[in-house]
Amino acid sequence: MDKRNKVFIATSLDGYIADKNGGLDWLHSVPNPDQVDMGYMPFMDEVDAIVMGRTTFETVCAFDCPWPYTKPVFVLSRTLKQIPEEYTKHAELVTGSIKDVLAHIHSKGFNNLYIDGGTTIQSFLKEDLIDDLIITTIPVLLGGGSSLFGDLEVPLNFEFVSSKVYLDKIPQIRYQRKR
Amino acid sequence: MDKRNKVFIATSLDGYIADKNGGLDWLHSVPNPDQVDMGYMPFMDEVDAIVMGRTTFETVCAFDCPWPYTKPVFVLSRTLKQIPEEYTKHAELVTGSIKDVLAHIHSKGFNNLYIDGGTTIQSFLKEDLIDDLIITTIPVLLGGGSSLFGDLEVPLNFEFVSSKVYLDKIPQIRYQRKR
Repeated sequence: MDKRNKVFIATSLDGYIADKNGGLDWLHSVPNPDQVDMGYMPFMDEVDAIVMGRTTFETVCAFDCPWPYTKPVFVLSRTLKQIPEEYTKHAELVTGSIKDVLAHIHSKGFNNLYIDGGTTIQSFLKEDLIDDLIITTIPVLLGGGSSLFGDLEVPLNFEFVSSKVYLDKIPQIRYQRKR
Repeated sequence: MDKRNKVFIATSLDGYIADKNGGLDWLHSVPNPDQVDMGYMPFMDEVDAIVMGRTTFETVCAFDCPWPYTKPVFVLSRTLKQIPEEYTKHAELVTGSIKDVLAHIHSKGFNNLYIDGGTTIQSFLKEDLIDDLIITTIPVLLGGGSSLFGDLEVPLNFEFVSSKVYLDKIPQIRYQRKR
């Protein structure tokens, strides 16, 4: 069965996923009164499970809202000892190499994975394990912050799949790995 | 009369304008047998003159082809002493602050300027002097190189204007400064 690892993320025009202070307010700089989801729900329908790093997991836990995911979440961390009791029905801690983690997740029958969080995405890209990139660009130059992309030993070719514009203001482009 | 400073440039998916070795071969990674200009000629029709840094100027001089520009070129440099004799009919050396340089160029009647070269673009952005950004994305992650964008003291908001896809493979998005 086809296995794919997918990224769905918003960046600033200069490629940051958080500003210099770790802030995300700029994500909401374009008014969105009707709460257009910018393809998020259709994307979630494409995946069976979510893989995220500790930072993203802790950010989600801190949201002042109910647990937002309906799919299983795997938290990739070397430092977290266990998933806090209240989240164990939603999330499972996974450790080890990315390939071992993927083998474990695949063995549970989850093959299309949403890979989230800057560090996790960069780790997957370093091992050429990302198949789909859906990038939403917020038209602001932050001038510094946490980059979506990091250093790679070798370039990775992707190919354009499709593009959309949300709210007449926010472009989103889908790429897939060209192998 | 309206004065605008415009950028028209191609970057990798991870925001580089040259690879780790300063190379540009990746710009041609998508086959383009019919030499589609990806909006370059219509863009050139929008501008009266070109402002570039020394590095870009020297790169253009080293091209094994006739001088490629039909509009006046202003070369912004603190280190270049003079424009080489063979290029003086095409290019003029300009020095001083960006605002002084712009005043000089405007005084000659050139108001819509193509700002080119990574360092020059970053210098203009630091002073919030870029009005239009037309960015063509080559779908490759280079994993390192020279970044198009640099540090900024304050974020700069842009707004989406339009998008195109060339050769069914290369997206290009036009943004303008939101003031």
